[in-house]
Amino acid sequence: MGVDDDSAGATVREHRDTTALDLRSGTSVPAGGGVQHTAQIDASAVPPPPAAHESTLPRTVEQHLDEILAAVPQPDPIELAVLDAQGLLCAEEVVSKRALPAYDQSALDGYAARSDDVAAATLEAPVRLAVVGETAAGAAGPSSIGPGLAQKVAAGALLPGGADVVVPAVWTDRGVVTVTVHAAVGPGDYVRRAGDDVAAGTPAVAVGTPIGPAQISLLAAVGRERVLVRPRPRVGILSGGGELVDIASDPAPGQAVDVNSYALAAAARDAGADAYRSGIVPADARRLSEVLESQTLRSDLILISGTFADEGDMVREALAGLGDVRFRPVTMYPGTVQAFGRIGHNQVPVIVVPGEPVAALVAFEVFVRPAIRLMLGKRQLFRRTVQAIAAQPVYSPLGYRQYLHGQVMRHPDGGYVVEPLGDGDEAMLARMARANCLIVVDEDVTEVSAGGLVTVMPLLLGG
Amino acid sequence: MGVDDDSAGATVREHRDTTALDLRSGTSVPAGGGVQHTAQIDASAVPPPPAAHESTLPRTVEQHLDEILAAVPQPDPIELAVLDAQGLLCAEEVVSKRALPAYDQSALDGYAARSDDVAAATLEAPVRLAVVGETAAGAAGPSSIGPGLAQKVAAGALLPGGADVVVPAVWTDRGVVTVTVHAAVGPGDYVRRAGDDVAAGTPAVAVGTPIGPAQISLLAAVGRERVLVRPRPRVGILSGGGELVDIASDPAPGQAVDVNSYALAAAARDAGADAYRSGIVPADARRLSEVLESQTLRSDLILISGTFADEGDMVREALAGLGDVRFRPVTMYPGTVQAFGRIGHNQVPVIVVPGEPVAALVAFEVFVRPAIRLMLGKRQLFRRTVQAIAAQPVYSPLGYRQYLHGQVMRHPDGGYVVEPLGDGDEAMLARMARANCLIVVDEDVTEVSAGGLVTVMPLLLGG
Repeated sequence: MGVDDDSAGATVREHRDTTALDLRSGTSVPAGGGVQHTAQIDASAVPPPPAAHESTLPRTVEQHLDEILAAVPQPDPIELAVLDAQGLLCAEEVVSKRALPAYDQSALDGYAARSDDVAAATLEAPVRLAVVGETAAGAAGPSSIGPGLAQKVAAGALLPGGADVVVPAVWTDRGVVTVTVHAAVGPGDYVRRAGDDVAAGTPAVAVGTPIGPAQISLLAAVGRERVLVRPRPRVGILSGGGELVDIASDPAPGQAVDVNSYALAAAARDAGADAYRSGIVPADARRLSEVLESQTLRSDLILISGTFADEGDMVREALAGLGDVRFRPVTMYPGTVQAFGRIGHNQVPVIVVPGEPVAALVAFEVFVRPAIRLMLGKRQLFRRTVQAIAAQPVYSPLGYRQYLHGQVMRHPDGGYVVEPLGDGDEAMLARMARANCLIVVDEDVTEVSAGGLVTVMPLLLGG
Repeated sequence: MGVDDDSAGATVREHRDTTALDLRSGTSVPAGGGVQHTAQIDASAVPPPPAAHESTLPRTVEQHLDEILAAVPQPDPIELAVLDAQGLLCAEEVVSKRALPAYDQSALDGYAARSDDVAAATLEAPVRLAVVGETAAGAAGPSSIGPGLAQKVAAGALLPGGADVVVPAVWTDRGVVTVTVHAAVGPGDYVRRAGDDVAAGTPAVAVGTPIGPAQISLLAAVGRERVLVRPRPRVGILSGGGELVDIASDPAPGQAVDVNSYALAAAARDAGADAYRSGIVPADARRLSEVLESQTLRSDLILISGTFADEGDMVREALAGLGDVRFRPVTMYPGTVQAFGRIGHNQVPVIVVPGEPVAALVAFEVFVRPAIRLMLGKRQLFRRTVQAIAAQPVYSPLGYRQYLHGQVMRHPDGGYVVEPLGDGDEAMLARMARANCLIVVDEDVTEVSAGGLVTVMPLLLGG
């Protein structure tokens, strides 16, 4: 299911230094030895959903996603040159002013003739015709043929008057002065009639059609240099957090490099957006408000990463000053706090994802990618999921939907096998970079034994 | 298998106005009525592979493809800013100068403590510790704790000296002056040790890794602003043919709009190339040679579409003056003549595909896309194929590999069903634009009955 072929030959028995993590204790459980770890989760030891200390009740992934999807605007269609429209959805019904083909023409290289003359030709009783000329594709001059005559024609060449059939060259002796036809050809054979493909005045490309090479070919053929499309949403991307330093700096103890503005910009582009990286938010409150306000003028969506304190945080306060952005506990792991709202005169949507890089990209997958696809007009907002056999036990906190990175591969006997990578720790970037999927464990599941089925979301680039 | 979900619910019984074509006669055979058309192909009526009139023997699709893949160069790696590297393959082993994480830190919001103090905590017998301070992520100052003490820490915050464990806040009463711990936490739990993810001096990203958001996240974390990658090949695209007029012109009878330079540019971009549209080749021989020569200086691959005459054609002559480009019959339909060679001092590869727009995009899929992916360094050169049930009979000339556009959809009982679209006529752009796959019929197969299995190549954008 869209999983990279490279993994197709791998087997479960292939050794990989993967450990499963017991979420109760945080200690790693050595995998393998054929022993299926089947310990029961002690429900009292599982962290309950955060609630009391947050100003709002925890919400589910679906509730948070629904709020976002209900609120993101659909940017107005724009007209683009056809090549720039690639990958976008057509936002108009493109009616062809021309017929396609524009005129009756030969469908292949051969001889234009009259069907009456060649209807009885066979290998044993061939028909001979006099060749009265040749029409290359592109040649225009009027010509016509009468009984017993043929005209050599290239594929796409204008059909001469009087001809109603083209004899493929391969069924003839390819004569120059006369041509011998070895096989019968019926009326209309190998002739393209004007309008066969698209009649003048009829729709060629419908609203909502994804524009790829074939649609660009058709748009060019009907003479369209420009086309109205659903534009790529402009996504402004900011990283928040007092610990952040620029990628060029060497972080001191306690500091961290801003990786999220890069990773989220890449993810937003991959999802189809025009992403603009603004980098780390200013440390000055007034300057921060200005940056956010200016983003509302040039973005269709503002994406901020940051693990902001509950109270007194500068980013929260700046957002509060510009609109209504609510930070809420969400019953997912990683990413137990997420935020969404709208700011500025234009009520530009703002999605805040966690500051931990792994949690940020998980939240992107779960909330931001579907929002960008909705803004693009796509019908399929979500990645496909498949069921896969867990090669190692998977543990998940009760009441939380857990997203774990993993490597999914085809099983030689059919179906898929997935190996969890690490323990879901939010900061393990190298582990995340080795993953090709997210394992999704529902809220009411605390454990899947090795050999059990889990839901897997392959993370392919593009699409 | 990567087929768009939108079609997942469609069934074979859904009516579609599709006709199957009898390639022997070129007449359409009404589809449906439940009648399976099982007429035998009359081998004598099938066009034999062209041979005598061409200077070279016909070759198979594989032979032509092998020649191209053996000859295309692999452009030298280039260094790009990490965001520009998105979608490309890493061409260096990126060794991290830093450890990731850079220092011992808390894995989540909670209280840093000494494991000896909290190893025995339970809900019934909680442990109380004095809170001696708070460390936010980003705060650097040195701090340490002794027995019976705890320090409030945010996820990612520097672990205070003396602490070897972090108690998740959700397992405590979240106290400010003192904190009550309700569950046991073992040594090292919820602590990220420096280098746990990537040790300093060890490889972070390997040669050949596709660079996506997760890899960009990791590259940023190890401080890389730029990375060496396999570049996008620069593909210069030209349309040849005396019948061609620009997209802005209204074609006169016998003329055709240049659609190929647009469609092939879109297809080349989709395959991962940087495509440059040069439009219609000049009609002047000297100017044509100049244009081709200048393309050899700035292209890694030159792509020309055109159905050129066997002899005396200006494009063939211009190519012959610059290098060795061989036009050869290939046993495929559409596209019975293809060309490949190299021109100029740099021996830049030139692929010539047919001028008919449908045949041009088929030849792109079969020959050009794998070549571009090889130049990108991708391991998977070819699209996946699936087996699908033919909803209509499919006919194919003996000795030719036929490529027919079709619509593939999931069958409600599992597997795939494919409906051929039209009759494989090379000029039917609207039909091609409705397709989501190519049906591939091998050389030795002349007929597949409705209900039989055919090989289908889903044509998805991207990837």
